[in-house]
Amino acid sequence: MLELERPIVQAPMAGGPSTPALAAAVSEAGGLGSLAAGYRTPDAVREDVRATRTLTGRRFGVNVFVPGPPGDPEAVHRYAEGLRADADRAGVGLGEPAHDDDAWEAKVAVLVEERVPVVSFTFGLPRPDVVSALHDAGATVLVTVTTPEEAVQARATGADGLVVQGVEAGGHRGGPSDEDGVGEYGLLTLLRLVRDAACLPMVAAGGLVDGASVAAALVAGAEAAQLGTAFLLCPEAGTGAAHRRALEQGRDTPTALTRAFSGRRARGLVNRFLVEHSAAAPAAYPEVHHLTTPLRAASRQAGDPEGINLWAGQGHALCQALPAGELVRRIGDEAASLLGR
Amino acid sequence: MLELERPIVQAPMAGGPSTPALAAAVSEAGGLGSLAAGYRTPDAVREDVRATRTLTGRRFGVNVFVPGPPGDPEAVHRYAEGLRADADRAGVGLGEPAHDDDAWEAKVAVLVEERVPVVSFTFGLPRPDVVSALHDAGATVLVTVTTPEEAVQARATGADGLVVQGVEAGGHRGGPSDEDGVGEYGLLTLLRLVRDAACLPMVAAGGLVDGASVAAALVAGAEAAQLGTAFLLCPEAGTGAAHRRALEQGRDTPTALTRAFSGRRARGLVNRFLVEHSAAAPAAYPEVHHLTTPLRAASRQAGDPEGINLWAGQGHALCQALPAGELVRRIGDEAASLLGR
Repeated sequence: MLELERPIVQAPMAGGPSTPALAAAVSEAGGLGSLAAGYRTPDAVREDVRATRTLTGRRFGVNVFVPGPPGDPEAVHRYAEGLRADADRAGVGLGEPAHDDDAWEAKVAVLVEERVPVVSFTFGLPRPDVVSALHDAGATVLVTVTTPEEAVQARATGADGLVVQGVEAGGHRGGPSDEDGVGEYGLLTLLRLVRDAACLPMVAAGGLVDGASVAAALVAGAEAAQLGTAFLLCPEAGTGAAHRRALEQGRDTPTALTRAFSGRRARGLVNRFLVEHSAAAPAAYPEVHHLTTPLRAASRQAGDPEGINLWAGQGHALCQALPAGELVRRIGDEAASLLGR
Repeated sequence: MLELERPIVQAPMAGGPSTPALAAAVSEAGGLGSLAAGYRTPDAVREDVRATRTLTGRRFGVNVFVPGPPGDPEAVHRYAEGLRADADRAGVGLGEPAHDDDAWEAKVAVLVEERVPVVSFTFGLPRPDVVSALHDAGATVLVTVTTPEEAVQARATGADGLVVQGVEAGGHRGGPSDEDGVGEYGLLTLLRLVRDAACLPMVAAGGLVDGASVAAALVAGAEAAQLGTAFLLCPEAGTGAAHRRALEQGRDTPTALTRAFSGRRARGLVNRFLVEHSAAAPAAYPEVHHLTTPLRAASRQAGDPEGINLWAGQGHALCQALPAGELVRRIGDEAASLLGR
């Protein structure tokens, strides 16, 4: 489906880490670089796409968040009360917990107009007419799933393939459902279950950081492996300074799933904010994301890793600070050699 | 380390499923069969070992539970109160929630005397003198781990190898720690982290059910794959009738981790008892196991799957009702063919 020289997809990491420079370096090395449309304006997405095209003539992908239903306003209000002390301490107000669709229709229109070669979706299922429009514009369309049931639903959209995300993955759980316990499958087993339930090409995601784990995912039936955390320390990544330092100095720090930062389950390094607020955090995305934005900005400005979302997958201890192209070549060649290819 | 003809270890499944017939069939097919010493008397363990030896001249393993500290008696008392209505409905009393060591020293003595070829430990770290005594009796010694830190600790016992158990696994979490969140690594990532932290031979466990997943585990660095759920439907397994039926008819039923049945986290098919009691169940093993024994026995007798521990790994939907030897040959040959071996 993707026909990559090296079977490595750079995960779209919204909120900073994904940059045109990172995407282009990965694609230039024979993998597939990705941009993240999440949290960006449609115009900024268009600029990113064009900037990437000035850096590489190769294919790349863009990921879009599919909007979901609003959360319970009362639960959001109660959660906001629990954040008040943090806000006072930081000397900032809380953000306005509005629900929005992250400019969904406009972003899809940009991707169609710009004829982006690969478009992937997370947080939900695109409508079949959206998939058709992208197909007409020449795109390969992927949908992120975390369970066999979601895979069957994703196939019905007309998508060309699936990003199969195991519980090991850093950042947000990408499937349509954000119910507790749903989609907490280990990657290896999930690949086998999804292949059985919905025979579509698969990109494996979650905790993959080196040649051996990439090779294993391919043997388990994936066409390519999507790596996110592995790229966070690359010089081309837009990873924030405090996040970068936390990864470099926290090799032994465990990760956990939490809704504390955004209102949607995501995996990050365990820190103060995650420990103090995970239990109370409701499923309300992006309301909680907006609510915590000023808190996270204040912590980021203070260089305090204890108050920000330190997204990281379970394999973060093995990530290397190398230029992205070198990383793709190294991991890709190691995987190929293990598979005798 | 194990030097198997087919790289498949049958997981020791205490509480019924593991039988001499199952262990012997797996070993005869070139894998490694296993007996479970847990919940059995030392004499019964000796009989199982001898019975297995009448069925096969090949190597096999025995697994032993390492005793841990008692749980909080007040928490156990509170949990018992919450089970009262279930007990009344079933017309039985609750069991006596005593702490015990499952005859630890006597069982180790039996394994030394009987010169059991492979001995594996779960729920804790054996003392180095226990490992030495087993080595003197010719045994290969394995310790079950669920985190890189546990792997480093296990290496210090003098063990020959590690059973690396991912969060996908059915039945009990086998590592020394039973803290929430500890050891909830997906298998593939865990194999890479453990290899990096404690370079010892690894047996991969958790959600492995077919040739492709076994092959993937080998590519990720394991010497063999340990499968449990995959054997539950074999005619040689002592799987209870209600458990067997639940697996056959519940292909779409999700699994979850729970302490509700035993006081230690274990993965099983979601059913009424798990849903109603997981949130309240304390970490107190084997006190809670004893407490719920009469309840489970009553449900089992009534053929009611909603009241018993239906241990199953995340890959249970793919398990096949085949004779164990045929299963080992089929999965082993499929893995070998995928690896071009």
